[in-house]
Amino acid sequence: MTPHAVRAAIRAGTISGPTQRFAPDRVQANLCVVPASWAQEFADLCARNPVPCPVLEQLAPGAFTPKCAPGADLRADLGAYRVWRDGVPVAAPHEVASLWNDELVAFLIGCSFTFETALARRGLAPRHYLLGRNVPMYRTRVPLATAGRLHGTMVVSMRPYPRDAIESVRNVTRPYRVAHGEPFSWGDPEALGIHDLGTPEYGDSPDLQAGDVPVFWGCGVTPQAVVVASRVPFAITHQPGRMFITDILHDELAS
Amino acid sequence: MTPHAVRAAIRAGTISGPTQRFAPDRVQANLCVVPASWAQEFADLCARNPVPCPVLEQLAPGAFTPKCAPGADLRADLGAYRVWRDGVPVAAPHEVASLWNDELVAFLIGCSFTFETALARRGLAPRHYLLGRNVPMYRTRVPLATAGRLHGTMVVSMRPYPRDAIESVRNVTRPYRVAHGEPFSWGDPEALGIHDLGTPEYGDSPDLQAGDVPVFWGCGVTPQAVVVASRVPFAITHQPGRMFITDILHDELAS
Repeated sequence: MTPHAVRAAIRAGTISGPTQRFAPDRVQANLCVVPASWAQEFADLCARNPVPCPVLEQLAPGAFTPKCAPGADLRADLGAYRVWRDGVPVAAPHEVASLWNDELVAFLIGCSFTFETALARRGLAPRHYLLGRNVPMYRTRVPLATAGRLHGTMVVSMRPYPRDAIESVRNVTRPYRVAHGEPFSWGDPEALGIHDLGTPEYGDSPDLQAGDVPVFWGCGVTPQAVVVASRVPFAITHQPGRMFITDILHDELAS
Repeated sequence: MTPHAVRAAIRAGTISGPTQRFAPDRVQANLCVVPASWAQEFADLCARNPVPCPVLEQLAPGAFTPKCAPGADLRADLGAYRVWRDGVPVAAPHEVASLWNDELVAFLIGCSFTFETALARRGLAPRHYLLGRNVPMYRTRVPLATAGRLHGTMVVSMRPYPRDAIESVRNVTRPYRVAHGEPFSWGDPEALGIHDLGTPEYGDSPDLQAGDVPVFWGCGVTPQAVVVASRVPFAITHQPGRMFITDILHDELAS
């Protein structure tokens, strides 16, 4: 199926659920929509914190068809949204067309599915991926660089690997700079303020085995944590795991 | 004096010492020179950590005359260098021409003098600036995003301000994005892992007064901390406070 057809099927409700296995050769994206009066600050936040918040595309106010996906409709093509008011999730609709207006600015943020696909191709598929689970994600105490009214701490995703695989994992993921790139760090969850790897704040619990080293990447759920911490008056995001499917091929992102 | 004349005077030894008051309308820069085999990783480190490490210019291997300062010689125009081997400072020469070779890559990193000049023009001169001291700088426990063999924690500079001045200070400094921009954070040194504001790792002790809030910015000394933490086999940097003077006007950096 083409990415256009997949988006149409999600929009029509023909397919649903986590998007990772849909259009697996295409870049998927985190969505964060904020009022136009917050857009410059959000762009600044991303520019100052590019590892968790790499911007694939910023749309014009009111626009819902990104350049990276001609014909798409960001208001319906994800199939699962979160609506936030004053930093609190207030609804989880299937589409947000009725909430859209010319004063909203959408940002698409790179997603780890890109480098996970690259890892799988090299025989380094993450364990949660093999088990059909969601990746575990953790709030950290690592402060983001503030940007105007926006502040917060970084969210990271974690994939366990044996120590002797880490250099390969780093090398495979490094080129995907707009999809979080190489790991942020590894082996020291306490340094990030993570005290219990068994209880992630988002996603599923990890399957940690003897000899595993936890490897951490910047995570595109970070903007949602910023919306909460900064009490942004209104925002729309994707639901974790239910991403926007672009037309971009993963390899186009490698640099 | 033109910036070209100031550089010539430093090179000749006619003037010396901290450079902040020299060519005060011109952008000054932190210097970090690494072997060509480490240059891509250093560029990556800066791209992934742009608040402490904003790149003004990356030179070609062996080059010592940056585009931002025609006629300059990075090997002599700072007047005070540090030479590092395996992450250890081994010399503090006045010039480094004899150490230079075609396998070295120089990076110029934005410097807080740019936004301090802007603050002074708005009646918000930092206190250390008024007292003729160096700004206090602190190692933090905030981890940088790793880049290949390079890792470390962020160094921040600190300027105390009364609480009701902070929004103005943020607004004045925000446009200078290639000179660390707006503050990283403020008011919570413990969140950065700073336990004693009275004993900075670099620069002079602060003059903290009742009602002051410590305001923290990303600091261009961070690459030196990375050289130490990562045991880079060879590096040349400026000495703190003895910067490279470019031809760029501060206002050209504002965006």
